[in-house]
Amino acid sequence: MKGRPQAYANLATLKMPPDDETPEKTPFIKDIPPKAADLSEWYQAVCYKAELVSLAPVRGCVVLRPYGYGLWERLQSELDRRFKATGHENACFPLLILESLLTREAEHVEGFAPEVAWVTHGGNEKLTERLAIRPTSEVIIGTMYAEWVQSYRDLPILINQWANVVRWEKRTRPFLRTLEFLWQEGHTAHETETEAAAEVAQMLEVYREVAEDIVGVPVYKGEKSASERFAGATHTYSIEALMPDGKALQAGTSHELGQNFSRAYDIRFAGRDQTEQYAWTTSWGMSWRMLGAMIMVHGDDTGLRVPPKMAPIEVVIVPLAGKGSTTAADFATTLAGELRGEFRVKLDDRDLRPGNRFAHWDIRGVPLRIVVGERDLSEGAVTIVRRDVPLADKAGRESKVPIANISTEIRRLLVEIQANMLREAQEFLKAHTIAPASHDEFIAMATDRAGMLDIPWCNRAECEAAVKEQTSASSRNLREPARGPVCLACGEPAKVQAYFAQSY
Amino acid sequence: MKGRPQAYANLATLKMPPDDETPEKTPFIKDIPPKAADLSEWYQAVCYKAELVSLAPVRGCVVLRPYGYGLWERLQSELDRRFKATGHENACFPLLILESLLTREAEHVEGFAPEVAWVTHGGNEKLTERLAIRPTSEVIIGTMYAEWVQSYRDLPILINQWANVVRWEKRTRPFLRTLEFLWQEGHTAHETETEAAAEVAQMLEVYREVAEDIVGVPVYKGEKSASERFAGATHTYSIEALMPDGKALQAGTSHELGQNFSRAYDIRFAGRDQTEQYAWTTSWGMSWRMLGAMIMVHGDDTGLRVPPKMAPIEVVIVPLAGKGSTTAADFATTLAGELRGEFRVKLDDRDLRPGNRFAHWDIRGVPLRIVVGERDLSEGAVTIVRRDVPLADKAGRESKVPIANISTEIRRLLVEIQANMLREAQEFLKAHTIAPASHDEFIAMATDRAGMLDIPWCNRAECEAAVKEQTSASSRNLREPARGPVCLACGEPAKVQAYFAQSY
Repeated sequence: MKGRPQAYANLATLKMPPDDETPEKTPFIKDIPPKAADLSEWYQAVCYKAELVSLAPVRGCVVLRPYGYGLWERLQSELDRRFKATGHENACFPLLILESLLTREAEHVEGFAPEVAWVTHGGNEKLTERLAIRPTSEVIIGTMYAEWVQSYRDLPILINQWANVVRWEKRTRPFLRTLEFLWQEGHTAHETETEAAAEVAQMLEVYREVAEDIVGVPVYKGEKSASERFAGATHTYSIEALMPDGKALQAGTSHELGQNFSRAYDIRFAGRDQTEQYAWTTSWGMSWRMLGAMIMVHGDDTGLRVPPKMAPIEVVIVPLAGKGSTTAADFATTLAGELRGEFRVKLDDRDLRPGNRFAHWDIRGVPLRIVVGERDLSEGAVTIVRRDVPLADKAGRESKVPIANISTEIRRLLVEIQANMLREAQEFLKAHTIAPASHDEFIAMATDRAGMLDIPWCNRAECEAAVKEQTSASSRNLREPARGPVCLACGEPAKVQAYFAQSY
Repeated sequence: MKGRPQAYANLATLKMPPDDETPEKTPFIKDIPPKAADLSEWYQAVCYKAELVSLAPVRGCVVLRPYGYGLWERLQSELDRRFKATGHENACFPLLILESLLTREAEHVEGFAPEVAWVTHGGNEKLTERLAIRPTSEVIIGTMYAEWVQSYRDLPILINQWANVVRWEKRTRPFLRTLEFLWQEGHTAHETETEAAAEVAQMLEVYREVAEDIVGVPVYKGEKSASERFAGATHTYSIEALMPDGKALQAGTSHELGQNFSRAYDIRFAGRDQTEQYAWTTSWGMSWRMLGAMIMVHGDDTGLRVPPKMAPIEVVIVPLAGKGSTTAADFATTLAGELRGEFRVKLDDRDLRPGNRFAHWDIRGVPLRIVVGERDLSEGAVTIVRRDVPLADKAGRESKVPIANISTEIRRLLVEIQANMLREAQEFLKAHTIAPASHDEFIAMATDRAGMLDIPWCNRAECEAAVKEQTSASSRNLREPARGPVCLACGEPAKVQAYFAQSY
């Protein structure tokens, strides 16, 4: 059994304040405060100071600035490639949904209606029926699938949509919860339940792979409990990451919708046996929330640390002398041109002090910096600085590299940094995945946000509600079999093994 | 002087019916009607039959289906690459705009307010201030630029956004006019008017290049008249294409906004001379309308014809025998695998009659079909069929190609088809660009939709209004100098040379 880790005592001090303290205008950030002192203050400071987002004039909405959008484009391209490789195609469905359509699947509307933004007027006219801005697109897509599907030959339909959605949240925070957000939503329709289940498992695995191998954020895969399930789904699966403050973050979900939506929206087909059947549908989504996880998991007191595979800029080249016809500046320009074929490269030859330029890219978490100085050049070398190694460890961070070896060394370092950042995050997750020894320890740890609490659980909604009431923690996801006879929360017979934690 | 072309008499028969005849549900299309008989009926039939779009449950909205989205992705990637090569970055601004912000630039709000969809409720609460769904984003982006720009060192800002926008149109038609549409909107801010003007010219040239070299649709570049100018701009430039019914289609616009928006939204900066100055801003956009132009310009009685550079699938491989372990099917599978490294390839080995499979891809306009049959194979060859050549011209359309030469031949044919389709469209545009000999001929031709009418013009709003009243035609765009002393429309002194036409 895993013990209580050293770091446990520190987590609870990393509190995020109440969400509704979001400022009205993007605050000016002079210095990034220490991450360990106040995670929330640090997080928001990094988001603004690294120019990932600005606050928009509409409450709860953010602007994704170019560098933040660059991160999103990296995530998009990694996901999109995998969606296409697994046979999915992109499409685009309307933003607006008729109220009468939205209300057709009872559980679904109950789950989403309180969060819907309503359009009531078009131009100068009042509409006869209100239109919802999509909070998610099962309704509109289900309606279209009903039109497109006649026979089993029309199945499966494997479609993904890159979209903006709106959910009227009371409390907001960049990436983690905003009124409007960017995401992708996959929607598929199948002939059989087995195929639908396989699709859901496949896409959950794509999410796990992208989270871990690309974003460097280790996650636990599992099924959600009934109370945490997507409104209208028969099974919801998730990947769950652990943040430095001991709270879990759901970073991707994949849903079996059974025949609920096909019955509500009439997706019927003539089967192989000539009988009329309802399709089995799924949906799955990942949003820019994943970027929030990346920021919290990897960032440090200097700012962002971006894993190379997510980096809009992998290598920044900084000539010490700045722009001009000096040897260093000329060399830097030539080097940037040569490296561009293989890496995402930025040349920063602005007429600013080197220290200012270093800080600019350190805050943005660029994995590698190549410093080009006259003295190094006279020795036939440049200095390469790693962003993943702490400032204090100068020897581990900086190395002098002969000019002839630059690309080989960049290639090697990018692989090493990617692996190193994942490993660090894995160690943190492992150290904070705890099997409490007793009911009392479970309750204490859940209250104190000790991490992912791994317990045998009864899988009853009443038990989950009681734990939540007492500790603010809920089940993150479940797997079988239970690794103990009784539920550590309530003493009833255990049915599953569950991760409990407070969550974003 | 260009004469009245032979084809002139035919154009007026290609009438599009009133726009509000859009059906409520996607109609089932059995056969595509002849293009020459009724362009509108043909156009809608192609859009539905090629599965580019479906009609959505909300009036005036369409679903962009996977094949249609594939066309959009091609256009996107060609534009995006050029935006980045010219120093622009992508970002994402909110969908919703406070009413009080929208109304700050007087001309802008007058132009757009009648088309705005209004959000009045969030969840169960009535909002204290209505929110507009963006019809375009000058307002929200201007507000953010005001926050981001302090000094001339912060300029230029070169940002593009890929977005959905909503305009409450009364009449709709797939791609050409819909309530919600996909587009990109570039928004830049500059230190000087000269720089802003250069940006606007540069992006207009990007649009021309993509329209002609990628979409194969030749266009005229020029400045819009005052009455056709973007609401709030000081200069609007456009590219204008000519459709087969003699109507022009504006396919991209680029605007100098002067200091109008920077004054309204307060984009001020400390200049090099320490004085406070207002930034010079621009905006420019191209939408999925470009796909509508592509469909109308290139399509034929069989369906779409897609220029290779726009084709989601460049080559479809059809084994005559269908799926199975026949020589042809095996060869087709291997060939598809080999060609995939270089071309966008689809293998269609469905268990359907070859003729049905041929028709399926002909309707979708795939540029090349490789037919794999046992007999050809025994001679060491396959048959390659071009989509751009008319069905009747079997010799020009089909060729037997030795297996060893397949990729070379595909490469050659794709280049030839791209060039051929552009040339055909250029010939049509040239044949229907007419300099009328007299006022009466101008009025008759404008009424009859003879094409792009190239006249010396006075550039007066009163004259344009009179022409529009009498003929439904308006100026498409203008250039200098006038090629005649007097305006052919009204007899006043000519100031510019103008293209007049009816338009979409």
